[in-house]
Amino acid sequence: MKNYTILILLLSPFFIFSQTDEEVISDIYSNSLTDGQSYNWLDHLSNNIGSRLSGSLGAEKAVIWTKEELETLGLDKVWLQPVMVPKWVRGIPEFAYIETSPGNTIKVNICALGGSISTPSTGIKAKIIEVSGVEDLEELGKDNIQGKIVFFNRPMNSSLINTFESYGGCVDQRYSGAMEASKYGAAAVIVRSMNLRIDDLPHTGSMSYGDINPEDRIPSAAISTKHADLLSSMVKLDNNIQFFFKQNCKQLKDVLSHNVIGEITGSEFPNEYIVVGGHLDSWDLGDGAHDDGAGCVQSMEVLRLLKNTGIKPKRSIRVVLFMNEENGLRGGNKYAEIAAQKSENHIFALESDSGGFTPRGFYFDCNQSNFDQILSWKNLFKPYLIHFFELGGSGADIGPLKTKTNVLSGLKPDSQRYFDYHHAPNDTFDAVNKRELELGAATMTSLVYLIDKYGIKK
Amino acid sequence: MKNYTILILLLSPFFIFSQTDEEVISDIYSNSLTDGQSYNWLDHLSNNIGSRLSGSLGAEKAVIWTKEELETLGLDKVWLQPVMVPKWVRGIPEFAYIETSPGNTIKVNICALGGSISTPSTGIKAKIIEVSGVEDLEELGKDNIQGKIVFFNRPMNSSLINTFESYGGCVDQRYSGAMEASKYGAAAVIVRSMNLRIDDLPHTGSMSYGDINPEDRIPSAAISTKHADLLSSMVKLDNNIQFFFKQNCKQLKDVLSHNVIGEITGSEFPNEYIVVGGHLDSWDLGDGAHDDGAGCVQSMEVLRLLKNTGIKPKRSIRVVLFMNEENGLRGGNKYAEIAAQKSENHIFALESDSGGFTPRGFYFDCNQSNFDQILSWKNLFKPYLIHFFELGGSGADIGPLKTKTNVLSGLKPDSQRYFDYHHAPNDTFDAVNKRELELGAATMTSLVYLIDKYGIKK
Repeated sequence: MKNYTILILLLSPFFIFSQTDEEVISDIYSNSLTDGQSYNWLDHLSNNIGSRLSGSLGAEKAVIWTKEELETLGLDKVWLQPVMVPKWVRGIPEFAYIETSPGNTIKVNICALGGSISTPSTGIKAKIIEVSGVEDLEELGKDNIQGKIVFFNRPMNSSLINTFESYGGCVDQRYSGAMEASKYGAAAVIVRSMNLRIDDLPHTGSMSYGDINPEDRIPSAAISTKHADLLSSMVKLDNNIQFFFKQNCKQLKDVLSHNVIGEITGSEFPNEYIVVGGHLDSWDLGDGAHDDGAGCVQSMEVLRLLKNTGIKPKRSIRVVLFMNEENGLRGGNKYAEIAAQKSENHIFALESDSGGFTPRGFYFDCNQSNFDQILSWKNLFKPYLIHFFELGGSGADIGPLKTKTNVLSGLKPDSQRYFDYHHAPNDTFDAVNKRELELGAATMTSLVYLIDKYGIKK
Repeated sequence: MKNYTILILLLSPFFIFSQTDEEVISDIYSNSLTDGQSYNWLDHLSNNIGSRLSGSLGAEKAVIWTKEELETLGLDKVWLQPVMVPKWVRGIPEFAYIETSPGNTIKVNICALGGSISTPSTGIKAKIIEVSGVEDLEELGKDNIQGKIVFFNRPMNSSLINTFESYGGCVDQRYSGAMEASKYGAAAVIVRSMNLRIDDLPHTGSMSYGDINPEDRIPSAAISTKHADLLSSMVKLDNNIQFFFKQNCKQLKDVLSHNVIGEITGSEFPNEYIVVGGHLDSWDLGDGAHDDGAGCVQSMEVLRLLKNTGIKPKRSIRVVLFMNEENGLRGGNKYAEIAAQKSENHIFALESDSGGFTPRGFYFDCNQSNFDQILSWKNLFKPYLIHFFELGGSGADIGPLKTKTNVLSGLKPDSQRYFDYHHAPNDTFDAVNKRELELGAATMTSLVYLIDKYGIKK
């Protein structure tokens, strides 16, 4: 009996302290919902720091502050990774109106698209030609377009359940509308905001001139959906009405910025890396609370939750707050470049960049065998109403880390409200629900816990 | 060949016009999201009519207006079903403060609970005894409670994923706190609002005196979560602080009101009834947009969508807007009573009364064989991210229709934000997202379509 007793005493710590996956995941959710930091962090990032366009003072404040916060978590390493980023500035706020007859004007809400050139300092006034996409330009030809402002007015398709698909069906007019219209002599481009609601807010976002010569480039701005509908109805009544707008945004020289990185070094396989991240930069009109403050604080929370629930990862877990996703992806590319230089084996990366809404599951970019392994965990997530596990994309910033054998993933939150706020002045802290944000962080942490524990099958 | 041609011609209408279930459901969702009426209806109900407490002018306006709207849909019958309802009125707005020392006061936000008596016209001022639930009263006993205001301060459990479970774990203190505290000589009761957030809004809701004699009844009010925390911290510092409140609500005599009913009469089995409904009454502090304006307009939309997508139901489909769910359930009981009198065979009833948020699925109250039949349709809902099909409750208003063989169901929307608004002044139209509301209506319609087409197995 004595020997048995000693054996039991020796083994008891394992029995006492070893939890089932169900129990660990329950602890993670409970800690996130009752003692989480993500919402407080987002409050500070949104309300005390605010917008974080690459190269701006806000972005630099965010780099310094998130590094400081990560340093309070007791991680093994926290550091900044230098990266040169483009610096585009909006300048004096934009100004626009519709002139239906001389002196008869209606002010409308626009914002320059990111990367656009300015108008002449006296603005541009021209007739409008409305199109529903870049594919309409060729048929209209120079005769109909020359000297006019091309008005891209294709609305997002509201019948699609996944609003990111609706976005994907429209965003080419924003991204390449100016580049294409300039080939037909257009004076400028106005694009309907990527927004499923009809409201007063213009939504910015990136655009590109491709390889168009600098002297041939034309300015490009987004107009609110309500004013897009107004403009369209007026053009239909009278195609001689004039549109005026003025913006003085410009592209400056690249400046130095940083990715912010924190790491818990793995106890068994320190050379296998798991990355969780979001992008620290944002557009400048709101506070970037959903895009992507939410993804940043959720990613920070993953490491805090691992520490606070007593999980000791076998593999090295990194949070990466990427700089410059919105207009350059320099941070994502730099991180992957350095990882390749150091031959770091990134077995898994998870990105949150679809807003801080109720999480529904994940997309996975991986082979079928790894996907099958992940699907075997699906029931662990059922109590948390996490049901969506599908093959698909992951995220822009982690994309450059893809190899033939690793797994990339993107958190999939409920998408219904995302484009109400995306790149718009109302992407602010009050638009984020505390519990929805915290559930996302717990869902990400649970997946990271499982990947760390079981590894990725080769 | 000739005969074959005639056969093909004869059969062709069936091939041309018969759609698969996938196609019908796709049409339903598409119509709801692109051409739906639910959001416009909710706008009118919330902003032009407003709150709809049983017996109020708002409730009567809502009865008249929803009947008129149903009459525009080309249904086979629309009628009002008389029902006597309790009439409780709030009276002059409540007033409350904490007095930490004579003259040193802090105003706090309270609201009378529905069904409570008034305070004396000069108000009540007394010391506070804080408890975390009715189960604490016995141990404290009369010695500690007599003459004091009992402050029920159990917070909702934020670690639960289903916020309705958190509500269920607290609501007894609101419903029966005054009844129980009066047995120990309490002067009055103040209850922490059923709200997962910390904010300034008091949340009302029903309470009951059970069989307590009228002369022994004590007034009962809810306090905002922020002020509940404040009060609690002050009582901990000094249990001699005084709480003052004044309310002059009262219970009047029952008055006549109505359930509003519309019907598409079935083409094959007109005597088999399918009911879809919500409750038209609301609390009085907000506009009742989520509770339960959303459920009403979604239920109306079910019949509109059936008509507009060309579905000709085999069974009789009724929308029922129940009166008086909040403080009496008279409408639900009356509808079931009349149905029983007429021996109407209600094979299925579906209620939406959990807010107009993104739908996740349904609860079903039925036997296993019927549940299996329903589960066989689950894949039809997958494209719409409807994944939750579980046995459980259905809804308060349809509950009285339960038989051994029929199926009752409750729509399950995402519950994370529901108690931010429930019974509070901010339950207003702006808190409802258009697409989330419309997805709920389409989800309900799709289930009704399947139940109607395939029937309920005996």
